[in-house]
Amino acid sequence: MTRNTIAPFFEPKSIAVIGSLRETWFGGYVSIRHLLLFSFPGKIYPVNPSYGKVLDREVYPSIKEVPEAVDLVIIITPAQVVPELITECAENGAKAIIITSDGFAERDEKGAELQQEIVDIARHSSIRILGPNTVGTANPATGLVTTPYATRYEKIRRGAVGFCAQSGLAGLQAIPLQDTQYGFSKVCDFGNKCDVDECDLLEYLAEDPETRVIAMHIEDVKDGQRFLETAKEAARKKPVLIIKAGKTKEGKKALKSHTGALAGEDQVYDAAFKQAGIIRVQNFEELLDFSKLFGLQPLPRGNRIAIVTTTGGGAIFGIDTAMEYGLNIAELSADTIERLAKLSPSLAANPVDIFTTSLVFEDVLRLYRETMQIVLSDQNVDCAAIVLYETPFTTLQLHSEIVEVFKELRRFGKPMGIWVYGTRLPSMRELAICLEKSGFPVYFDFITPIKALGIAAKYSAGLQKLHQ
Amino acid sequence: MTRNTIAPFFEPKSIAVIGSLRETWFGGYVSIRHLLLFSFPGKIYPVNPSYGKVLDREVYPSIKEVPEAVDLVIIITPAQVVPELITECAENGAKAIIITSDGFAERDEKGAELQQEIVDIARHSSIRILGPNTVGTANPATGLVTTPYATRYEKIRRGAVGFCAQSGLAGLQAIPLQDTQYGFSKVCDFGNKCDVDECDLLEYLAEDPETRVIAMHIEDVKDGQRFLETAKEAARKKPVLIIKAGKTKEGKKALKSHTGALAGEDQVYDAAFKQAGIIRVQNFEELLDFSKLFGLQPLPRGNRIAIVTTTGGGAIFGIDTAMEYGLNIAELSADTIERLAKLSPSLAANPVDIFTTSLVFEDVLRLYRETMQIVLSDQNVDCAAIVLYETPFTTLQLHSEIVEVFKELRRFGKPMGIWVYGTRLPSMRELAICLEKSGFPVYFDFITPIKALGIAAKYSAGLQKLHQ
Repeated sequence: MTRNTIAPFFEPKSIAVIGSLRETWFGGYVSIRHLLLFSFPGKIYPVNPSYGKVLDREVYPSIKEVPEAVDLVIIITPAQVVPELITECAENGAKAIIITSDGFAERDEKGAELQQEIVDIARHSSIRILGPNTVGTANPATGLVTTPYATRYEKIRRGAVGFCAQSGLAGLQAIPLQDTQYGFSKVCDFGNKCDVDECDLLEYLAEDPETRVIAMHIEDVKDGQRFLETAKEAARKKPVLIIKAGKTKEGKKALKSHTGALAGEDQVYDAAFKQAGIIRVQNFEELLDFSKLFGLQPLPRGNRIAIVTTTGGGAIFGIDTAMEYGLNIAELSADTIERLAKLSPSLAANPVDIFTTSLVFEDVLRLYRETMQIVLSDQNVDCAAIVLYETPFTTLQLHSEIVEVFKELRRFGKPMGIWVYGTRLPSMRELAICLEKSGFPVYFDFITPIKALGIAAKYSAGLQKLHQ
Repeated sequence: MTRNTIAPFFEPKSIAVIGSLRETWFGGYVSIRHLLLFSFPGKIYPVNPSYGKVLDREVYPSIKEVPEAVDLVIIITPAQVVPELITECAENGAKAIIITSDGFAERDEKGAELQQEIVDIARHSSIRILGPNTVGTANPATGLVTTPYATRYEKIRRGAVGFCAQSGLAGLQAIPLQDTQYGFSKVCDFGNKCDVDECDLLEYLAEDPETRVIAMHIEDVKDGQRFLETAKEAARKKPVLIIKAGKTKEGKKALKSHTGALAGEDQVYDAAFKQAGIIRVQNFEELLDFSKLFGLQPLPRGNRIAIVTTTGGGAIFGIDTAMEYGLNIAELSADTIERLAKLSPSLAANPVDIFTTSLVFEDVLRLYRETMQIVLSDQNVDCAAIVLYETPFTTLQLHSEIVEVFKELRRFGKPMGIWVYGTRLPSMRELAICLEKSGFPVYFDFITPIKALGIAAKYSAGLQKLHQ
């Protein structure tokens, strides 16, 4: 049921855009330009009384003149005219409205009244509203990008991360989404959550076949009971990672003036998240970094990690992090130890440190491939953290050979997190892009991928317990 | 005294390099090439019995043939010949030796005996030894780069961060030092610490006028009492940040096989660091990210932070972090509030959110400049976290105008940390490079700069207490 009413925000067949059509960096013109740039295949109806044509499209003086009931309306106008526009949208038969306009509950008491007014109109006509005070939604699979802020985007990679935030922080104008290689299934800014909220999105994304992991930022929860139930249901289907802003008293105070959110005590959220099986993360970087691993890699079947490294010193941070995040250092089987020792005696332990061998081995890529194949085929190993050293001699050719090695390893069905380090950032970034495009999550530190694997193992154990 | 015996590792006038001179990616050839590339101005003596010339330099068949007593010798040979070489170095009158060779205490019992042998020889002749099992040192100010691993470097920026690690992790081959803009004063890998250790470096860097902050990675401490005393002394002179590997039982076990380090209980280290006034950090990224702020910015006089932001949602994470790291959200003075309100009513609170105003203000750069000038001139403000939004319209011209704005703010003598966010990573990186080159630390998240400011305020308060 929720899915049906939320779907028009992400999968509309027709969109009306009401607002300024001036060719500038903010407004309806930008939203329409984004839709065209991303090849949105549906109908687009620009609505503005002062224009004849924009971007080669007929402009309608009012939503009343639009010849069909549209799936989605995007409103980017001053706040005071919004209530009237909603009424007109209802008459049109529109299913969903994104209200980008600000000046509502986040502003002052008068704004809050105005917001209540639009909620009342919408409820009466069963239109769903996202916002106000939102940059809207994106669905890379269907060329949907509603944001009215200019970006330098041409494409967002389609992927498995469903990403929502109660703030412009999830907007395309706030995170360089185009420069990420792991891809997004859906992106949504809740804004003031006057109607559509985190629970609606949890329900929608839990059912969404493109979404394999839900990454969510919230400032508050409006209905605790419903949140607990929907979050629990969602977390049984796929990992749900949440970052909650306003942990401190001062942070909570600031929330109120931001989106009008009234946040409760942080420990209440903590307990609720735990009860619902939600993975709470502490900062935005972790939210996306952990989601990347969930989005690209399979879940581990257990918590035993193997580490393949070129730096003994770095591996120690890996071990410390693994232990702190509930992983065990895998005890390699006798057979594995024997096979590794045959390759080179100094490899026969976990962490498998290939450094000394790599100095004398004729083909380092083969050394990597064989080491990782032996390690990942061990039944005592559930997941692996792999250290790649970007030498000053790597070429694009070598990068693609490295990717091929990892593709071969996929057959073991065990998640891998990769730390790339080296001498120059540009070539490290190139290698990371190659690997992530092919589905292998890369990090420029060794702590984050191991935290991510630890969290994945914990989530996986929780699921297994449920299904026992 | 220590300073005198350690200085040759960083400020040598002459260097002998003993090892393979094959043109490959590892060995004496690479060390010499690095010295030439970085324009090391002193004498370089390649030593190898099998070569006549290398890189246009005369090769000496043995250190015995080198015509002067050298300040520094770099040994990159198989372990077993090292003791004999040390004896020869002593005869030469060399002051310091970097032993890059591995196969000592980190390998096995036999290696440990070999290591003891070289220590005995060196002590007898008062030569100081760094290593074995080290990539050596770097001093950007004097063109000194001893690492025998090929890098793609041509230059390392001279700066205020003295960076040491008990592992190749501080080597130029492990951190892309050339791509950092804040600069390093000295870089050192301790290796097995058979002689020169963390205490020697603390003493040396505490006295080093180029070093404003000491960033150190350690796996163990050999002499607890001396460490406490030297660390305390160093921390009175400049901030000392330390990351300690091997927090967990499993991590400690791995340490032993890495550099032969025998680490004690983690809480003992924790207590010692606290007693000595050392700032303990939890990962490598923080070690350098925090040092960057200490290296580029003045110390705050108090703990009251102002936040200037373009995102209300982002600012809340800033507030939470500030509170968690001992900062207070500055209460702006009545005069400041009045001046901000005059610029625009929505600016009159801390965090100062310029978003709404920026949508209508004719010159956003002027808005930034005036807002920040008003805020930083407030006597109730000790430091500032500033959010910069890299719009899709910024140009290199605008980047340099932004840098000029920040340069003007320097006169307030208050530390600033900057969060850059935006739509595209490449232009965000460009802006960050421009700012850091001019001395303003940039981060791509809002947590890290505020943590760094919090830590700086705490360090500053400690210093003030000492001087009362």
